[in-house]
Amino acid sequence: MRIAIQGEAGSFHEMAARQWFGEAITVIPKDTFPEVFAAIASGEAEGGITAIENSIHGSINSIYDLIERYGYPIIGEVPLKVEQQLIALPGATPDDITHVYSHPVALSQCSAYLDEHFPKAKRIELPDTAGAVRHIKELDDRTNAAIASQAAADLYHLPVLAKNIENDEANYTRFIAIHPDWPVPAGADTAMLSITTSHKPGALAKVLGIFADAGVNLLKLQSRPIVGQPWKYKFYLDVAASGSRLANVACQLHEHDVSVTILGQYKRQWKD
Amino acid sequence: MRIAIQGEAGSFHEMAARQWFGEAITVIPKDTFPEVFAAIASGEAEGGITAIENSIHGSINSIYDLIERYGYPIIGEVPLKVEQQLIALPGATPDDITHVYSHPVALSQCSAYLDEHFPKAKRIELPDTAGAVRHIKELDDRTNAAIASQAAADLYHLPVLAKNIENDEANYTRFIAIHPDWPVPAGADTAMLSITTSHKPGALAKVLGIFADAGVNLLKLQSRPIVGQPWKYKFYLDVAASGSRLANVACQLHEHDVSVTILGQYKRQWKD
Repeated sequence: MRIAIQGEAGSFHEMAARQWFGEAITVIPKDTFPEVFAAIASGEAEGGITAIENSIHGSINSIYDLIERYGYPIIGEVPLKVEQQLIALPGATPDDITHVYSHPVALSQCSAYLDEHFPKAKRIELPDTAGAVRHIKELDDRTNAAIASQAAADLYHLPVLAKNIENDEANYTRFIAIHPDWPVPAGADTAMLSITTSHKPGALAKVLGIFADAGVNLLKLQSRPIVGQPWKYKFYLDVAASGSRLANVACQLHEHDVSVTILGQYKRQWKD
Repeated sequence: MRIAIQGEAGSFHEMAARQWFGEAITVIPKDTFPEVFAAIASGEAEGGITAIENSIHGSINSIYDLIERYGYPIIGEVPLKVEQQLIALPGATPDDITHVYSHPVALSQCSAYLDEHFPKAKRIELPDTAGAVRHIKELDDRTNAAIASQAAADLYHLPVLAKNIENDEANYTRFIAIHPDWPVPAGADTAMLSITTSHKPGALAKVLGIFADAGVNLLKLQSRPIVGQPWKYKFYLDVAASGSRLANVACQLHEHDVSVTILGQYKRQWKD
C-alpha cells in the first residue's frame, strides 16, 4: 500500500505511518501537508498519515481545513512520544559544533538544551528533521549537527551526541491516518465532527449541552474561521462516541438546526 | 510612547499601532512575537501591538500562550483589512519579474494571483512584508518584486505594479493592543478570558451554559493545550461583557469550580 507522508524517510511521520498501516507499506514522501492530500486525490498514494496536533504547540490549524476540503475519512490516530536526539558526524565532539539544523518546531522543542550547551551555535531551519540529518551527512563537515529521531540517526548511520534533549518530558505528537475507501475500523470509539451553528447567542452552549445530556464526552474542541465571514467560526469536535450512538446525537443536532459532518470514526489510542 | 511591534516600519503592525496609540508613538520593531513581549518586560517598550488572528488563516496560537505568560492586559483591538500590493523597482514591468519576496502568509494570501500572472517566479519567504520591500530596494535589480502594503510602497518610494492581489476579498487581520499600566478603556464592552475547567464530562457545556443564561454572547472560543497534560486543553473566550456584568458571571463560574482569569477588557471595533 502506498502511503503519503509529510517529510521523508526517517521522520516521525514515517514512524507513525508504519505503526498504523504496517511495515509493508511504500512511503510516498511529500514536502508539505497540502501535497499529502493532493497525492491521495491524484491516486499517487492510497492513504496518508499527517500530524494534527502536538501536546505543547497545539493544533496544526491548516490540517483541519484540508480534512474538510478533501473529506477523506479519518480512520485512526497514532500518538508518538517526541524524543529528539542531537546527531553529528562520526568523531565530532560537542566543541566542534557551530551549526545545528532541524525543523523549526524541533529547534524550538530543544531550545533550553541548545541555549545551555550550544549558546553560540547557529540554528538553521529545514523542512524536515530527517532531512536535516541527510543534509549534515551530505555536507560532511564536523561543525554541523542535526536534531531528529533515533530512527533518522540509524537510517543515516550517524552517532547521537546527546539523547532526549527536548525541553519538556511530556511531548507527544498525535498523527491521524486517512484513507478514502477504508471501512470504519473495528472497535472505533471516537469520532471527529465538523459543526456549524447558527450565530445566535448560546448556540454553542446548546450543542455542547446536547452532547452532555447524551453522556457523550467531548475530547477536543477546535475553532476555525469561516472563510468569507470574518470573526465567525466553525468547530471541530473530537467526541467519545461512534456508530448508532453517534448517529443519534447527530440527528438531535440536526433537529436543532446545527449542521454536522462526521469526518471519521477511529479507535482512540491514548488513554489517561 | 514607545510601542513594540513585530515587523518593521511600513508593516501592517505599524499601521495598527498608529491607529490605536496615535501617530505620536515611537515604534520599536522586533523580529518575533516573543521579543515584543520581552521588550515590554524589560522596559524597552511601554506597550505593544500584536496580530492575534486572521479571518482566513485563523488564530496565531503562540500569542495566546504569550498573553497568559506575561499577563499584560489587552486594552484594545484593531481589525485591519489586508490589501496586498505587488511592489517593484521604478521602470520594472511584469515581464521583468523572476523573484517575489514576502512574508509566508502574504505569499499564501496572493497565491492565486501569482499562479496566474507569475507562474514561473520564485517565491522567497522573509520575516516581514515591509522588510521584503526594503530588501528589493537594496538589491536594486528589476527582476525582484515584493508583496506588502501600500504604506510600505510609500515608505520606500517604490511603485505598485498591481493593486489588491490577495485571493480573498474578505481578508482581515485582528490586532490587539497590550499595556501593563493602562486602565480599562472607556466604553469597553468586550473581554478576553482564560478558562480552565475540571476534566469531567460536560464541564465546558456547563461553562457556556452559564454565559448563555446570563445573556452574555460568546464571540470567540480558542482551545490551547495544557503543557504537561497531553490532550487536555484550556480555553480562551472572547465575550460581549465588561465591568460588573462580567464580574458577576466570573463569580458564578468560580462557584462551579471553573478557574477564570480576565485577560483584558476592550471596546470591540468590529460590528456585524
